[in-house]
Amino acid sequence: MDFVSLFITDFIAQLQSPTLAFLIGGMIIAALGSELVIPESICTIIVFMLLTKIGLTGGIAIRNSNLADMILPALFAVVTGIAVVFIARYTLAKLPKVRTVDAIATGGLFGAVSGSTMAAGLTVLEEQKIPFEAWTGALYPFMDIPALVTAIVVANIYLNKKKLKEAGESAMQESYSKQPVAAGDYPSTRQEYLSQHKDPGDNRVKIWPIIEESLRGPALSAMLLGMALGLFTQPESVYKSFYDPAFRGLLSILMLVMGMEAWSRIGELRKVAQWYVVYSVIAPFIHGLIAFGLGMIAHYTMNFSMGGVVVLAVIASSSSDISGPPTLRAGIPSANPSAYIGASTAIGTPIAIGVCIPFFIGLAQAIGG
Amino acid sequence: MDFVSLFITDFIAQLQSPTLAFLIGGMIIAALGSELVIPESICTIIVFMLLTKIGLTGGIAIRNSNLADMILPALFAVVTGIAVVFIARYTLAKLPKVRTVDAIATGGLFGAVSGSTMAAGLTVLEEQKIPFEAWTGALYPFMDIPALVTAIVVANIYLNKKKLKEAGESAMQESYSKQPVAAGDYPSTRQEYLSQHKDPGDNRVKIWPIIEESLRGPALSAMLLGMALGLFTQPESVYKSFYDPAFRGLLSILMLVMGMEAWSRIGELRKVAQWYVVYSVIAPFIHGLIAFGLGMIAHYTMNFSMGGVVVLAVIASSSSDISGPPTLRAGIPSANPSAYIGASTAIGTPIAIGVCIPFFIGLAQAIGG
Amino acid sequence: MDFVSLFITDFIAQLQSPTLAFLIGGMIIAALGSELVIPESICTIIVFMLLTKIGLTGGIAIRNSNLADMILPALFAVVTGIAVVFIARYTLAKLPKVRTVDAIATGGLFGAVSGSTMAAGLTVLEEQKIPFEAWTGALYPFMDIPALVTAIVVANIYLNKKKLKEAGESAMQESYSKQPVAAGDYPSTRQEYLSQHKDPGDNRVKIWPIIEESLRGPALSAMLLGMALGLFTQPESVYKSFYDPAFRGLLSILMLVMGMEAWSRIGELRKVAQWYVVYSVIAPFIHGLIAFGLGMIAHYTMNFSMGGVVVLAVIASSSSDISGPPTLRAGIPSANPSAYIGASTAIGTPIAIGVCIPFFIGLAQAIGG
Repeated sequence: MDFVSLFITDFIAQLQSPTLAFLIGGMIIAALGSELVIPESICTIIVFMLLTKIGLTGGIAIRNSNLADMILPALFAVVTGIAVVFIARYTLAKLPKVRTVDAIATGGLFGAVSGSTMAAGLTVLEEQKIPFEAWTGALYPFMDIPALVTAIVVANIYLNKKKLKEAGESAMQESYSKQPVAAGDYPSTRQEYLSQHKDPGDNRVKIWPIIEESLRGPALSAMLLGMALGLFTQPESVYKSFYDPAFRGLLSILMLVMGMEAWSRIGELRKVAQWYVVYSVIAPFIHGLIAFGLGMIAHYTMNFSMGGVVVLAVIASSSSDISGPPTLRAGIPSANPSAYIGASTAIGTPIAIGVCIPFFIGLAQAIGG
Repeated sequence: MDFVSLFITDFIAQLQSPTLAFLIGGMIIAALGSELVIPESICTIIVFMLLTKIGLTGGIAIRNSNLADMILPALFAVVTGIAVVFIARYTLAKLPKVRTVDAIATGGLFGAVSGSTMAAGLTVLEEQKIPFEAWTGALYPFMDIPALVTAIVVANIYLNKKKLKEAGESAMQESYSKQPVAAGDYPSTRQEYLSQHKDPGDNRVKIWPIIEESLRGPALSAMLLGMALGLFTQPESVYKSFYDPAFRGLLSILMLVMGMEAWSRIGELRKVAQWYVVYSVIAPFIHGLIAFGLGMIAHYTMNFSMGGVVVLAVIASSSSDISGPPTLRAGIPSANPSAYIGASTAIGTPIAIGVCIPFFIGLAQAIGG
Repeated sequence: MDFVSLFITDFIAQLQSPTLAFLIGGMIIAALGSELVIPESICTIIVFMLLTKIGLTGGIAIRNSNLADMILPALFAVVTGIAVVFIARYTLAKLPKVRTVDAIATGGLFGAVSGSTMAAGLTVLEEQKIPFEAWTGALYPFMDIPALVTAIVVANIYLNKKKLKEAGESAMQESYSKQPVAAGDYPSTRQEYLSQHKDPGDNRVKIWPIIEESLRGPALSAMLLGMALGLFTQPESVYKSFYDPAFRGLLSILMLVMGMEAWSRIGELRKVAQWYVVYSVIAPFIHGLIAFGLGMIAHYTMNFSMGGVVVLAVIASSSSDISGPPTLRAGIPSANPSAYIGASTAIGTPIAIGVCIPFFIGLAQAIGG
C-alpha cells in the first residue's frame, strides 16, 4: 500500500513538473484545435542548444572526475546503457503490432538517465546515512550518452534494412513483370541504392556507413561536439551563463511542440498501449538488476561501495525525461513521441523513483548487512 | 503646476524606459531607411514566449491568492476590464475617421494593466501609511486578461461583420447586374461565406464561432495555456529561470519591430491624433472612477479596505505597456500600433501615474476620513 | 625565453576559451562532414542581439564617462581606430595574392578592441601600482566602434569601385565588339549602374552614398541603434537582464557557424597565410606605438597619466575577438573569416597580451622614470 501511495504521489508530482505539464498542455491545445505554431527554425535551434548542453554537461562531468578510480563502474554504466537499448530491440519491439522504431526509441529513453531520479536516489542514501563515493554522480553521462547514441544507430540500421528489403522485394516483383528486359539496362535508383548499401556477394546492410551517418546527423553532432568541448576546453563560462540556465525553459517549449505532435499520433497507440505499460513497469527493475549485478563485481574486485552499487542501479532503472526527448526527436524523427515519452515519464519515472529506489536500497542492505 | 511638472517628469522617464526607447528607436531607424530586419520566425517565438509568460504570471498569481477573500473585488476587476473595451468601442470608435479596430485595440490596452503603474500606486499607499489587503496586487490578472481577450474577440466580431456586410452589398450589386441567371447556379465563395457565417433567417453574425476562433488563435492560445499551466501545475522553475528573466529583453526586440511597423503607419493618424489625445487624457479617470465605485460596493458589503479600493481604481486607470502590445499585435494584426501604443504609453501611463494615483488617494481620504 | 613561454601559455588558454573553442569545434565538425545546420533566421537574430549589445555597452560607457576630462584621449582613440584600418588597407592588402576585403576586415578586427586584453592590461598596471585615470576603461568604445564602422565603409567603397571597374572594362570590350551600334541605343544596366555611381565628368565612386548605405545595413544599424539607446535612454534593465548575460552564449553559437564557414574557405589562405602571420606579429606593436605617441601628446598637454598612456597603447595593440567577428560577418559578408579571425585570435591576441603589455609598461617606465 505504501508503494502504491508513493507511486501515486510521485505520479501527480510528475504531471505537475514543467516538462510533463508543457507536454500535456501541448496535447490539450492540439486537441482543442489551437492554431499555435512554433516555427521549425526555432525548434532546430532549441534542439541544438539542448543537445549541446547535454553534451557539455557530460563532457565537463567526465573531465572533472577521476577516471582512474571510476574506470570499472564507468565501463559498467556504458555496458548497461547499450544493453538496455538491445533489450528493448529484442523484447518490446517483438511484441505484436509494436512499431520497431518506437520500441527502439523507448529503449533509448529507458537507457538514458534522469537527473532528477538520480538526485532523489542520492538524497535517500544520504538521509539513510549509507556511504557512497562522491564521484558516483559523474557516472550518469557514461550511461546516458551511449544509450542515446546506440538507440539512434540501431534505429537507423533497422530503417535502412527495412528500406533495403522493400527495395529488394519490389525489384524482384519488377524482374518478374519485366522479364524480357535485361536488368543491366535499367540501372534504376533502387538498384543503385542496393549496390551502395549492400556488401557485394551477401545480403547484409553495411553497418559502419550507417553509424557514421548517425554520428554526422544534427542530433549526435551537437551532442558529441558539446561533449568534446566539455572534455577538452574550458566552456564553463558560457555553460553557466547560457546553456545551463536556458535549458529547462527551452525544453518546455520543445515539450509543448512534442505534445502537439504526440497528440496527432496518439491513435497509433490504441492497440499497443498495454505493451508499453507492461514494459515500463518491468523494465526499470530488469535494468536496475543488471546494473546492480555489474556493480557487485566492482564491489568485490575494486571495493566499490554498496551505496555506489545502489546509485548505479538507480540510474539504470531511471528513464530520461530531459536529455532523451530532444535527442530522439532529432535523431529518430519517425518514432512516435506519444509512445516513448508516455512510457518513460508517465510510468517509468514514477516506478523508478517510488519503487526502485527503496527496492535497491533494501537489496543492498540485505546483501551488505 | 505640481501636476504638470509631475506629468512632464514622468513623461520623460517613460520615454527613457527600455520599452518606449526601443519603440522610438525602431521608428527612428525606419525613418532613416535602415535595412535591419527581424525574421518573422523570431517575432513568432518572441510573441509566444511573452504571452506564455503573461499567462503564467496571471495563473500563478491567481493560484497563490485566496480566492474566497477576494471574490468580489476580483469579479469587479473582470467587469471593469471588459467594460473598458466596450466603452472604447462605443465612444472612441464612433469619433470621426477613427478606425474601429484601432479604437478597440486602444480600449484593450487601457483595460489591460500596467504592472509599473500598479507598483507606483502600492508604493505611494505604503509611503502614506494607508492600509490595504496584501492580496490586492493579485487583482491585476483578473482585469488584464479579460480586457485583452475581450478586445480580440470584439475586434474579430467587428471584422467579420464588416466582411459580411461588404460581401452582402457586393452580392446585391451582383444580383442586379446578373439578373437573368438564377442565383442557385452560382454557389460563389461569397455566398458560401454568407451561409456559413449567418444564422438562417436573420442577418446577424454568429458570435460563438468567432469567440472560439479567437481563443484558438496563436495569441490567446499561448496566453490561456500559460494561465492554465500557472493555475494547475508547478511551472515556477521554468518561470523563474526562463520566461520571467527573458521577458523584458524579448519585449525590447518586439518593441523595436513594432516601432518600425508603427513608423510606416503613423501617417494614418494625421487626422485623428487629437481624438486619441482626448481619449487618453479622459479615459484613465473614467475607468478609475468605475473601478472606484465598484470597489466602494465591496467596501460596504465585504469590508474591503479603502486602500484596496484605491488599488482597484489605479489598476483600472493604468494602461498596459507590457502585456498589451505583443498580445494585440498577434491578436488584432490589422490594428495600427502607432495608435494604441502611442495613446497608451505616451499619454495614458503618465496621466495614470502622475495624476490618477494622487487623485484617487485624495478621493479615498476625502470619503474615508 | 620568458616571452616565448608567456606567448605559448596564453596561446593555449586562448584555444580553450569558449570563443575560440566553438570556432575550432565548428571547423572540426565541418571537416568531419557533420550535417548540423543553424537556421539563417537564427544567425540573423543572434547578430542583431550581439551588435545591439556591443552598441549598448559602448553607449552606456560613454554616457557614464566624464567627456570633458577624456576628450583628447578619446579623440586619439578614434584616430587610432580609423588609422589601423587604413594601415591594413595600404600594407596587408597590397601584399601579393592577399584579398583586399580580407585585409580590410583584418584591419577592422585589429582596430577594434579586446575587452579581455584591456582587462589584462589594467590588472598588470594595478599589480605594479602604476596609477592611471579610472575612466581609461571607457576609452575602448571610442576606438572599437570607429574601427569597425571604418572597415565596413572602406570595404564597401572598395567593392563598389571594383564592380564599377569591371563594369567599365566590360563596357569598353562591348563597345569594341559592337561598334556599329550607337551606345545610346543600349541603356544597359551596366551603364545605368555607371551613371548612378559615378560623378559626372570624372571616374571617382561617390563616397557618401556608400557610407550611408553601410550605416543603413543591418550590422551598423543595430550597433549604432544600441549606442544611441545607451547614450540617450536608460536601457540598463534590459541590458543587465538580457543582452549582457546572453552575449557570450549567443557568440558561441555564431562562432560555431563561423567555424563551419571558415573551414570551407580555409583553402583560400594556403598561399597567403605567411603574410597574415607577419602582419599579426608586427601590427600590434605599430598600432600600440601610434596610440602611445598620441597618448604622450595628451600626457604633455593635459597631464594624462603615463598609466593612461599605457592603457591607450594596450587597447590599440589588442584585436577584437568578441565584437569584431559578428560585426564583420554581417557587414563584410564576402570577407573570409578564416583570415581575419585566424590572424586576430590565434596570433594577434596572444602577442598583445603576452608581449605588448609588458613592452608598453616597460616603455612608459623608461620614459616616465
